[in-house]
Amino acid sequence: MIITLTTDFGWSEYVGAMKGVILSIAPEARIVDITHSIRSYDIRHGAYVVGSVCRRFPEGSIHVVVVDPGVGTRRRGVVIEAGGHTYVGPDNGLFTFLKDVRRVIELQVEAASRTFHGRDVFAPVAAAIAKGRKPEEFGRVVEPQPVRLEIQEPRRRGRWIEGEVLCVDTFGNVITNIPEEMLDAEFGAELEVELSLRRVRVPFLESYGFAEPGRLLALIGSEGYLELAVNQGNAGSMLGVRGGERLRLCVVS
Amino acid sequence: MIITLTTDFGWSEYVGAMKGVILSIAPEARIVDITHSIRSYDIRHGAYVVGSVCRRFPEGSIHVVVVDPGVGTRRRGVVIEAGGHTYVGPDNGLFTFLKDVRRVIELQVEAASRTFHGRDVFAPVAAAIAKGRKPEEFGRVVEPQPVRLEIQEPRRRGRWIEGEVLCVDTFGNVITNIPEEMLDAEFGAELEVELSLRRVRVPFLESYGFAEPGRLLALIGSEGYLELAVNQGNAGSMLGVRGGERLRLCVVS
Amino acid sequence: MIITLTTDFGWSEYVGAMKGVILSIAPEARIVDITHSIRSYDIRHGAYVVGSVCRRFPEGSIHVVVVDPGVGTRRRGVVIEAGGHTYVGPDNGLFTFLKDVRRVIELQVEAASRTFHGRDVFAPVAAAIAKGRKPEEFGRVVEPQPVRLEIQEPRRRGRWIEGEVLCVDTFGNVITNIPEEMLDAEFGAELEVELSLRRVRVPFLESYGFAEPGRLLALIGSEGYLELAVNQGNAGSMLGVRGGERLRLCVVS
Repeated sequence: MIITLTTDFGWSEYVGAMKGVILSIAPEARIVDITHSIRSYDIRHGAYVVGSVCRRFPEGSIHVVVVDPGVGTRRRGVVIEAGGHTYVGPDNGLFTFLKDVRRVIELQVEAASRTFHGRDVFAPVAAAIAKGRKPEEFGRVVEPQPVRLEIQEPRRRGRWIEGEVLCVDTFGNVITNIPEEMLDAEFGAELEVELSLRRVRVPFLESYGFAEPGRLLALIGSEGYLELAVNQGNAGSMLGVRGGERLRLCVVS
Repeated sequence: MIITLTTDFGWSEYVGAMKGVILSIAPEARIVDITHSIRSYDIRHGAYVVGSVCRRFPEGSIHVVVVDPGVGTRRRGVVIEAGGHTYVGPDNGLFTFLKDVRRVIELQVEAASRTFHGRDVFAPVAAAIAKGRKPEEFGRVVEPQPVRLEIQEPRRRGRWIEGEVLCVDTFGNVITNIPEEMLDAEFGAELEVELSLRRVRVPFLESYGFAEPGRLLALIGSEGYLELAVNQGNAGSMLGVRGGERLRLCVVS
Repeated sequence: MIITLTTDFGWSEYVGAMKGVILSIAPEARIVDITHSIRSYDIRHGAYVVGSVCRRFPEGSIHVVVVDPGVGTRRRGVVIEAGGHTYVGPDNGLFTFLKDVRRVIELQVEAASRTFHGRDVFAPVAAAIAKGRKPEEFGRVVEPQPVRLEIQEPRRRGRWIEGEVLCVDTFGNVITNIPEEMLDAEFGAELEVELSLRRVRVPFLESYGFAEPGRLLALIGSEGYLELAVNQGNAGSMLGVRGGERLRLCVVS
């Protein structure tokens, strides 16, 4: 049984503690680190990883996801069954992009600590499920509606396409929610992009390596969405952009 | 057989070299990264992780621990059997917090290099033990007394509790050796804390998220000890504190 | 079947995506992270890791190596069989130090994205090979000559030894291509080292811990080559050195 881990713990010792707990309960579990480099407390970044990476694992995988600035406060912990996978973590928006949510179980588990539910709640629940226990043994079934971040749907307005910055990834690539299909541009075209504080013109290219190192470009990222990037650099810092910001753009040539 | 790795190698290529060596000797070993983010050369930080994380793994696990500023100098390498687990690493204080030490074997192994005993001594010895070889084949049994860091026991003195900073963890949380039971305070109380260079007043709260982002708080950490932290920040840097420093505190309201 | 991963992805979410793809194709594969801390776009650093670390894994291992500044441009992807191991990645110099290259297959695989061949080409090809498929099903067999970086062979010239900086490792150790055998010096000797911009005198010592913290030293690194290092510090930054630079040195006392 595969149990994946996605956290903002920075590859620290606390990741190891979660692994120890899992293996003590389910010694045969195969633990796979997805990443522990989610930007600290950036639920939006975590949600993007859950939506784009977890589904690439085999059906039946269990995904423990912990980006949890509200640990110990009133946010609820959940187990979610969606698309043949099981997700365990705090219900704070991390599960925004899950499709086909079949069940949500609100966890009602006594935690040994108030500060580390990754180790004391989410890891042991995931391990117990891997051993064959049922999620509903750990809480009550509620409406299959996880908390979802508000995401503005992309739309056309005249020659402009309006959308938002889904998140800035670990490399600083600015990932928008504008799908490839909405953009009617050929490679080499120039785009005008308006962000909250800046307006830039960038070439629309096939891949990072088509721009000079250090130069801004637009491209279709590996998930099929428009992305602003700097070849061998960090577009998020260069542009001062954060996840959730609105943007609009049009093709100028 | 589980072999865990804990180092200050920073997730570098040298971790990969240890894994290659282990799998070449014991192809069925299950290697689990605990962390490679121990603060460089910080034996105290390593000792804290050994004491709090390794014991969470199943009995019978073998733990390779390498924080080894003295590699190639005279410090000895050891295998330690304690509490149903086996530990392999340099005997420089890393094993301070192990309880129930049953045996210590001083390693007498020819190393291929003078600079990388993690790869050339500790990893192969751990792998050989995983394959069923006996620790005493690699050295001689000595007194079951690993080198231990000097830790000042916490104590009451009038209205003050005196203790020390056990270590600053990867997040910058200042973990003391004052156990929950010694502190007679309710959530919301104010504590006065004296460090070597600073005196601060901090609220005693249930968890990080109960303080404003960026604000200092005191809480009971996940190991049951008093901890100074900054919600979404780094208390160690803010206070200029290091592992080993003395502190004292009292409840002021 | 062991599949190792070596990238410059920085332990980001994109590593997790590769793992998901591999396990979906080859659920029994044992994925081992070698490192994801290759200096960004530093093919030379990647080549050093391939040459020194991958060969330590058991024969039959499959190594996915992705340091790929040219992704989506014309560089070719390859599968290489060498020394009982299989390597998969871009043919841009990463495989410079492989010995006994038996076969090279140029990949001719349609990629789902132009930006992430690690996930869309190299990971699935490696997983398919782990499942028993033949490399030649994914491309055509070409001359067994991977692209190799130009490395100046070390040589003696009077009392000087000339060589080059093979790479600067993750710790900042300056690893040369001068083998232990060429250096006729005893521990404690002083070496004069000329780099492009600097000339320094350094003691030749047994290991890092024999120098004071913060002091430069020369030593024989764990691969058997002369290395410049700073005890508990970063020699690459201190000296302003990069991989590929020439250097020469002699024993002065």
